[in-house]
Amino acid sequence: MSQRGFASDNYAGVHPDVMAKLAEVNTGHVVSYGDDSVTAETIERFRQLLGDQVEVFFVFNGTGANVTALQSMLRTWQNVICTETAHINWDEAGAPERLLGSKLVDVTTPDGKLTPDLIRANFIGRGDVHHVQPTVVSITQSTELGTLYAIDEVQAIADIAHELGMYLHMDGARICNAAASLGVELRATTADVGVDALSFGGTKNGLMGGEAVVIFNPELAQNTPFIRKQQMQLASKMRFISAQFLALFENDLWHANASHANAMARRLRDAVADIPGVTITQEVQANGVFARLPETAIPKLQEAYHFYTWDEASHEVRWMCSWDTTEDDIDSFAKLVAEIVPASS
Amino acid sequence: MSQRGFASDNYAGVHPDVMAKLAEVNTGHVVSYGDDSVTAETIERFRQLLGDQVEVFFVFNGTGANVTALQSMLRTWQNVICTETAHINWDEAGAPERLLGSKLVDVTTPDGKLTPDLIRANFIGRGDVHHVQPTVVSITQSTELGTLYAIDEVQAIADIAHELGMYLHMDGARICNAAASLGVELRATTADVGVDALSFGGTKNGLMGGEAVVIFNPELAQNTPFIRKQQMQLASKMRFISAQFLALFENDLWHANASHANAMARRLRDAVADIPGVTITQEVQANGVFARLPETAIPKLQEAYHFYTWDEASHEVRWMCSWDTTEDDIDSFAKLVAEIVPASS
Amino acid sequence: MSQRGFASDNYAGVHPDVMAKLAEVNTGHVVSYGDDSVTAETIERFRQLLGDQVEVFFVFNGTGANVTALQSMLRTWQNVICTETAHINWDEAGAPERLLGSKLVDVTTPDGKLTPDLIRANFIGRGDVHHVQPTVVSITQSTELGTLYAIDEVQAIADIAHELGMYLHMDGARICNAAASLGVELRATTADVGVDALSFGGTKNGLMGGEAVVIFNPELAQNTPFIRKQQMQLASKMRFISAQFLALFENDLWHANASHANAMARRLRDAVADIPGVTITQEVQANGVFARLPETAIPKLQEAYHFYTWDEASHEVRWMCSWDTTEDDIDSFAKLVAEIVPASS
Amino acid sequence: MSQRGFASDNYAGVHPDVMAKLAEVNTGHVVSYGDDSVTAETIERFRQLLGDQVEVFFVFNGTGANVTALQSMLRTWQNVICTETAHINWDEAGAPERLLGSKLVDVTTPDGKLTPDLIRANFIGRGDVHHVQPTVVSITQSTELGTLYAIDEVQAIADIAHELGMYLHMDGARICNAAASLGVELRATTADVGVDALSFGGTKNGLMGGEAVVIFNPELAQNTPFIRKQQMQLASKMRFISAQFLALFENDLWHANASHANAMARRLRDAVADIPGVTITQEVQANGVFARLPETAIPKLQEAYHFYTWDEASHEVRWMCSWDTTEDDIDSFAKLVAEIVPASS
Repeated sequence: MSQRGFASDNYAGVHPDVMAKLAEVNTGHVVSYGDDSVTAETIERFRQLLGDQVEVFFVFNGTGANVTALQSMLRTWQNVICTETAHINWDEAGAPERLLGSKLVDVTTPDGKLTPDLIRANFIGRGDVHHVQPTVVSITQSTELGTLYAIDEVQAIADIAHELGMYLHMDGARICNAAASLGVELRATTADVGVDALSFGGTKNGLMGGEAVVIFNPELAQNTPFIRKQQMQLASKMRFISAQFLALFENDLWHANASHANAMARRLRDAVADIPGVTITQEVQANGVFARLPETAIPKLQEAYHFYTWDEASHEVRWMCSWDTTEDDIDSFAKLVAEIVPASS
Repeated sequence: MSQRGFASDNYAGVHPDVMAKLAEVNTGHVVSYGDDSVTAETIERFRQLLGDQVEVFFVFNGTGANVTALQSMLRTWQNVICTETAHINWDEAGAPERLLGSKLVDVTTPDGKLTPDLIRANFIGRGDVHHVQPTVVSITQSTELGTLYAIDEVQAIADIAHELGMYLHMDGARICNAAASLGVELRATTADVGVDALSFGGTKNGLMGGEAVVIFNPELAQNTPFIRKQQMQLASKMRFISAQFLALFENDLWHANASHANAMARRLRDAVADIPGVTITQEVQANGVFARLPETAIPKLQEAYHFYTWDEASHEVRWMCSWDTTEDDIDSFAKLVAEIVPASS
Repeated sequence: MSQRGFASDNYAGVHPDVMAKLAEVNTGHVVSYGDDSVTAETIERFRQLLGDQVEVFFVFNGTGANVTALQSMLRTWQNVICTETAHINWDEAGAPERLLGSKLVDVTTPDGKLTPDLIRANFIGRGDVHHVQPTVVSITQSTELGTLYAIDEVQAIADIAHELGMYLHMDGARICNAAASLGVELRATTADVGVDALSFGGTKNGLMGGEAVVIFNPELAQNTPFIRKQQMQLASKMRFISAQFLALFENDLWHANASHANAMARRLRDAVADIPGVTITQEVQANGVFARLPETAIPKLQEAYHFYTWDEASHEVRWMCSWDTTEDDIDSFAKLVAEIVPASS
Repeated sequence: MSQRGFASDNYAGVHPDVMAKLAEVNTGHVVSYGDDSVTAETIERFRQLLGDQVEVFFVFNGTGANVTALQSMLRTWQNVICTETAHINWDEAGAPERLLGSKLVDVTTPDGKLTPDLIRANFIGRGDVHHVQPTVVSITQSTELGTLYAIDEVQAIADIAHELGMYLHMDGARICNAAASLGVELRATTADVGVDALSFGGTKNGLMGGEAVVIFNPELAQNTPFIRKQQMQLASKMRFISAQFLALFENDLWHANASHANAMARRLRDAVADIPGVTITQEVQANGVFARLPETAIPKLQEAYHFYTWDEASHEVRWMCSWDTTEDDIDSFAKLVAEIVPASS
């Protein structure tokens, strides 16, 4: 089997500019745990992009970012309303419940997107000690299903959350893909539309490893330094995480990487959508393509390319594109789909 | 407002036989924390009723019983499959997530009952470190919606759970109501049909306060003494909890109390089912009646009797009967329903 | 072996006045979970005794009171400074660490009492994310070693705690013994000298089972209702816990019970202190006597009376007196000590 | 202020061989979460060095390694016996208590080293539900005070631990410094002398960031994959952690780096030990020097070099050397000590 594939955007390696930046900051002694000048400079860049008042906390991975952000807003008797398909609900091995001590209230959706109505319907029991207290709404941008919240959809969710006395968390593991696809600056879909805290993803967009918790609501950041440390997400040689983000923001690398991945997903959709036996199941708005295939076609395709079955029951698969996916990757794979799928139908 | 009502079976007081037993055991010094002869005798009674091998742990309340039982079967990366309406999911303020550190996977049902198919559909991700590991099925008997699992339905659920390498927990806050309604011994719907651990309810059936964790699968009881203590559910003057159960088992008081409550619920259903504007929404199989009413009728009825709205959106109310509900309570209330509801439709 | 003994004040039964009160409140339907008139009346009594502004939360047991009180003051990255012999540190099976998620910093003392100097010496790392943040001082009154804090000692500890930006918790499992021994009202050693939150003990002073969390600092009580519920310490038939305290405050039963137990401890000390081979190891200021005995004497005495060895290495034993200890209990036991100990030396 | 200093071995950067290896493995798509060939090869190297049966789990940081290793051996009602100065007890912000839910029993020592006698004295309450159950002994090699356990001292501790039915965990954040200083292979002070689980440090010995949990006792590794994931210590682009260890084991880089740091510490000790006003407080057996200085000298030295005061009260400081500390660093600093300290005495 070729190592190339569409399994996940974390199968990709590190962008050369990021590697170069890591080498660049590897000079001599530097204060550890984030009190260094590289980290200070990177936080400054975040503030230029997302707002002067934001507080930024670098962490190791996406679950670390989500848990650190959520604990900044939550006590254990309070809950998080999210989609059933949310990464925090589905793919984090119960870390949120275990490490927050809080309940996730998960909502079934067709497209991975919460709505004001769904939030209102799940806003239950405020003030009743027998019921977990609704406190945080968490949405993912772009979603785990490759879809996007329009800017005004985020604003509408922020509005209802705040009206109900709740906070809005955004899992932005693919926030760069979202902004690039929407054709806006990073702040347009976050700071400007009422997000209180953001998990800003780096690893899936060309970094070696690193995510950032960005807190827009300054009163929520008060305890975050302690939370990050106690949740084991504070790196000692911090400069090597923050530097990666520095590279990501130079020359708009974040945008180039994300746009490319998005474009590759669209190219894949265009190439396979009309192949008999292929049904595209979600709008392709970021860097993932979801499709239903004949059951027997799936293992045949997987012999040649890595990708995951998303839903066994309906034979739905997920194809993720990344910053390093090539047009040739797409075209070769689409050719194989065209060979195998119609014959399996 | 009269204090009488149908709000909950925990609005009732203590059965006189239980009070008498408490007075009876209040003699002199007794070893604390359960190493006393009253507790030993009570455990022996449990074994006569439920099986020689059962381990019994008295606790303070229902959530305490559920958490103690579940932690005996669970590690933090493992999950519990239950209904959305399960007490552990809906009414325990997130204590299970907080105190177990485990995820509850809640399943929507029309009648508060899991089925083998629902369990199988939610048995996901075994062996995948990113996904919580399916480990315990928890059902409530009788359910939070006043319905019952037939004996073979429990057996079928135990079978699928065990086939999948899972354990079966039963929240028996109203296990006496269930057994009485099914017309069987307590073991027929628990020990004999594959339940691994049972939260045996006492408080709602005439006790002052006390529940018991009954573990049928002896290998699961190994750590339970430590779990009960650390979860703050070990009473120092234990004789005063165990003695209540002793009273409950004398002269089949458990059966008399539960049968009476069940009969009162059926009497209420019979009295109101045909009143225009009243729609009975669940089968009345234990001691609760669920009904949909005209919205405006609800507060008028609540001026005279305590009861809770179960679902605001659909104007569904819950009427619980208890060991001390009288025929007169039912008849007077039904008369009021007949006056108010048709006029509100 | 006689059931009489000196093992613990929780080997005693329930005072008849408490039993009578339980019977008295057992009338008809009452709102559950504490929204009843008995509970309201009892809270009013607490306010008369301890201050108009206090918030009172009844719970099941001592660990429940301590954890509920402490969580009202603590986040997980904050710590509690206490003695090594503190009940929270030594006898609660790790419940505080498990259920608070916080570290206890335990301090070795000769007499079970913290001092301002010990607190200052353990006030370390404020503001340093690598170190747990010193936040609560917890003292026990009377202590686990049968000693007492003088009123000005409590004040001095409160002063240093508040000066350092910390809160003062008092584990008052035996607060009645303390007040009775000091000859003061309950508020003199609690509300009036700067205690922020108190675990008010009832079970060891003649109740069947029940403790109260009393919060003097109102801003700390904001989340306590949710904390109590989630920590599984909220009783459904609450009237039967609160009523016990009502009885305890009628006719100053709290004082009579505690004074009696204290007097019995002094009587025991007086009777055995001069017996050759007996060394009293702690001042007898409440209802416990600590003594060093010849190793071989201990099991001989334990054949006739229940009591615990406190420290195996030094052959130190603990003798607790309770509200129902009789002069005859003391005199018979002291006689046996006089027979056995000198012969074992 | 120069950036050079002796604050911590994590102020140093990344060894060039490690940077080169990171670049080397940055080729194309690779399976994520550790199912890649680089990780497999690295685990194979660990097995060659530490034993065929060992299980290896790469994690992000030292606290992550300790918590993952300890949770593999512990339930929440069980405890860890460690020194007061242990990193898990002193420098991890309460993460062990918070994330394990278990109590640490910390023992005061003069030199950061547990002994069989200290372990036996703290082995208390086995089988008593009121007391946390002694289950794991955790030692640090080399210790937080720069001292070492001799090989037979580790063996003696393993023997007593196993005799008592406990496990032995070793915090090896500086295990390479220990092995290098002892002049033995890595397995001689770990696998060969009864250690059950090891936190194998990399970050302090020239890596960018990465630690490994090494489990010698295979039955303890059963749940570790789930524990690592749920504790947020599973890297997606794992090859970039494992590759760093691969570099560390090539050409015995681990030994070269550690030996150098150790040698620099000895050089520093030799250079300052006889300066009037300097008192070396701990044996210099690894890469740290502890010294007592005149109080006023400390800030003067800190104007020129980073280092931390270890104990404010006694004016004890800690000087750490790392793989990149130069002879010139040492000599210049020692010269400054010789100028400032005698003048401050």
